Amino acid sequence: MEINKELIMIGQRAKNAARRLAFAGTEAKNNALHAMSQALLEHQAEILKANELDVQAAEGKGLRKSLINRLRLTTATIQEMSKAIEEVISLPDPVGGGEFWTRPNGLRIQKTRVPLGVVAMIYEARPNVTVDAAALCVKSGNACVLRGGSEAIESNKVLARVISEAAEKSGLPEGSIQLVAMTDREYALQLMRMNKYIDVIIPRGGAGLIQTVIENSTVPVIETGTGVCHAFVDKDADLNKAVSIVFNAKTQKPGVCNALETLLVHEDIAEKYLPLIGKQFQDFGVEIRGCEKVRQILEYSKQAVEEDWGTEYLDLIISVKIVKDLDEALDHIYQYSTKHSETIITENYTTAQRFLHEIDAAAVYVNASTRFTDGGRFGFGAEIGISTQKLHSRGPMALPELTTIKYMIYGDGQIVT
Amino acid sequence: MEINKELIMIGQRAKNAARRLAFAGTEAKNNALHAMSQALLEHQAEILKANELDVQAAEGKGLRKSLINRLRLTTATIQEMSKAIEEVISLPDPVGGGEFWTRPNGLRIQKTRVPLGVVAMIYEARPNVTVDAAALCVKSGNACVLRGGSEAIESNKVLARVISEAAEKSGLPEGSIQLVAMTDREYALQLMRMNKYIDVIIPRGGAGLIQTVIENSTVPVIETGTGVCHAFVDKDADLNKAVSIVFNAKTQKPGVCNALETLLVHEDIAEKYLPLIGKQFQDFGVEIRGCEKVRQILEYSKQAVEEDWGTEYLDLIISVKIVKDLDEALDHIYQYSTKHSETIITENYTTAQRFLHEIDAAAVYVNASTRFTDGGRFGFGAEIGISTQKLHSRGPMALPELTTIKYMIYGDGQIVT
Repeated sequence: MEINKELIMIGQRAKNAARRLAFAGTEAKNNALHAMSQALLEHQAEILKANELDVQAAEGKGLRKSLINRLRLTTATIQEMSKAIEEVISLPDPVGGGEFWTRPNGLRIQKTRVPLGVVAMIYEARPNVTVDAAALCVKSGNACVLRGGSEAIESNKVLARVISEAAEKSGLPEGSIQLVAMTDREYALQLMRMNKYIDVIIPRGGAGLIQTVIENSTVPVIETGTGVCHAFVDKDADLNKAVSIVFNAKTQKPGVCNALETLLVHEDIAEKYLPLIGKQFQDFGVEIRGCEKVRQILEYSKQAVEEDWGTEYLDLIISVKIVKDLDEALDHIYQYSTKHSETIITENYTTAQRFLHEIDAAAVYVNASTRFTDGGRFGFGAEIGISTQKLHSRGPMALPELTTIKYMIYGDGQIVT
Repeated sequence: MEINKELIMIGQRAKNAARRLAFAGTEAKNNALHAMSQALLEHQAEILKANELDVQAAEGKGLRKSLINRLRLTTATIQEMSKAIEEVISLPDPVGGGEFWTRPNGLRIQKTRVPLGVVAMIYEARPNVTVDAAALCVKSGNACVLRGGSEAIESNKVLARVISEAAEKSGLPEGSIQLVAMTDREYALQLMRMNKYIDVIIPRGGAGLIQTVIENSTVPVIETGTGVCHAFVDKDADLNKAVSIVFNAKTQKPGVCNALETLLVHEDIAEKYLPLIGKQFQDFGVEIRGCEKVRQILEYSKQAVEEDWGTEYLDLIISVKIVKDLDEALDHIYQYSTKHSETIITENYTTAQRFLHEIDAAAVYVNASTRFTDGGRFGFGAEIGISTQKLHSRGPMALPELTTIKYMIYGDGQIVT
């Protein structure tokens, strides 16, 4: 595949920047972050003007209202972006530190953390990702190549220019933060083949985008996001907890990856529990798609079809199934889970332990909402995505996940015999 | 791409096995390893007979002698394989443990280590990889799918059967260790697309094999092995160390990835140093391919061409270049390095520190041979490969690198507000 010349130049600049960023000190990086944060506030009018163009274009194309809402920037959201950068300043620098040991031959081996190098983000129409990703990459010493969705292109162009100029003026190397302004799909595909310049690609967005990156990228990928999350209400559940947790996980913010999509209910408590949660769902306007047995109890529910069990609705819809025991619940989750977040509601110690250990997912909960799977809520102070793969990182990714290791070995003439 | 039915069955069996292996105890895994180790000794005659078929076929095809040597098994090598398994028993179990913290809302988060799941190894004609990889996967609780080269197929079939039968008899789930006996390239390509069943692919072999996997795999890959390793002899080098380290790194075992391929020499000491190392190389039969300036000093050296600087010879050949200072050495390495192992020979503190921090490689040495980049020599007790990528693991990979993380969260009704 031939790579566009402008993309290659972006790649070269990023690689050169990464080489110097790798040993930029914490102070220099924090100064740059502060400059970026201030620049956003200073260029507010310009940013809002560019954003207005995007919003108008989106409205003209008749895009969904939820999409337009995510696209729209206001004085308040710009202040939030600025504040988010200041919060990154307060986080510990993930670069450096590590372990140190001495081998019998006197070799001293230091295992330390270094930046990944060049991180490419491919994302959709959320301009705040441009700023968040750049800030986390600067703090972790990575150069970033940002490729946002076409709907946000005017906003992204101004945001990227404002923060990269601020970063460079404060002393970071040229090319530390770059936007790919060419939003045609073919350039994204080329980006995925730039192994010579890019160390990792992190896609953030819907299942379609992520699948495209997995299928096409030869650059290592950190898969993020898709969450077909389950709750299993066990026969030994505290029904109050079961109602409040399941309702929260489904409805508190249905459009995100850690929201609940499928509810499994133990048959022994189904007749008691389902009407309770069903009522709450009905009142909130949640559509229930149930198995045959569920429909006998909640006659107002729709019929679930096979496809429902694997669907991430990201909407006020839930699939519900009655299972005969923990094993059937485990089997169902094993088959349909995207290994993001799963929860059990039970008071039974052994059942809880089996669920925790036998479920294969990034986050497995007992008696809590799946909505907690989040860098901030886990206490990491930041998040660049939630990994649903097993390599490199799993679950919420923060600053340490943007680093890799390096062995530095101190010898005094050792040879292998 | 349509996947062969037999491959899908292998994938399903592996996935089922992985589900149970994930919580197999250390004792059960060690018992299985001991049974595998014993079974190799008990089935020695059968293994040697099958290996003889492979060796005869290889000789018939006129394969290189070095290849046939790697292929050939003897009573001694079978005993070594058996002993290697016993050594894995003595290593700590990488599964479990981790950190634990409590959030302000009372959620208790445990970050623990779990197996990757199903590990596929694609490798060439080294039957010992079949046994080594299986043992490391068993110890780390992973199911493995082994796809060795066609030249070793008869040996691999017997080895895989003997160890997997022993493992299952001792109680491990069926499908824990499986060999893909179909050695056609197309089946390897299909394996690289089995994301539903395989969590990671580790290719081990030459640059061609590894490139094929990177180009074609949608399953996450851990890239291993290619090493264009450099030594830079600085103007402040101790020349005795410089001779002994460079000679060792090039000649002690030239066919491996951590062997030296390129020597860079500071111009200030070139006239003094090059004749010393040149003499040793000449006596040992090492071909020197030098830049113009090198050829003025070592008139017996050949002319290096551009291609030489990026070549992993894996042979008694070395490319040699005179550079004017540390910066030119750093630039050269940055351009041609495969980021495996690099070494500097210097007595200068600041030069050493700059080299350690500015070189981007898995292992960076001062005054020691690059040949130390090895799981055993680093003190890890085992090695499943040497990662030259930055995601997940970098440098020698041992048991911990065959695990991932899982968050287990203990709640008592927490919801997100």
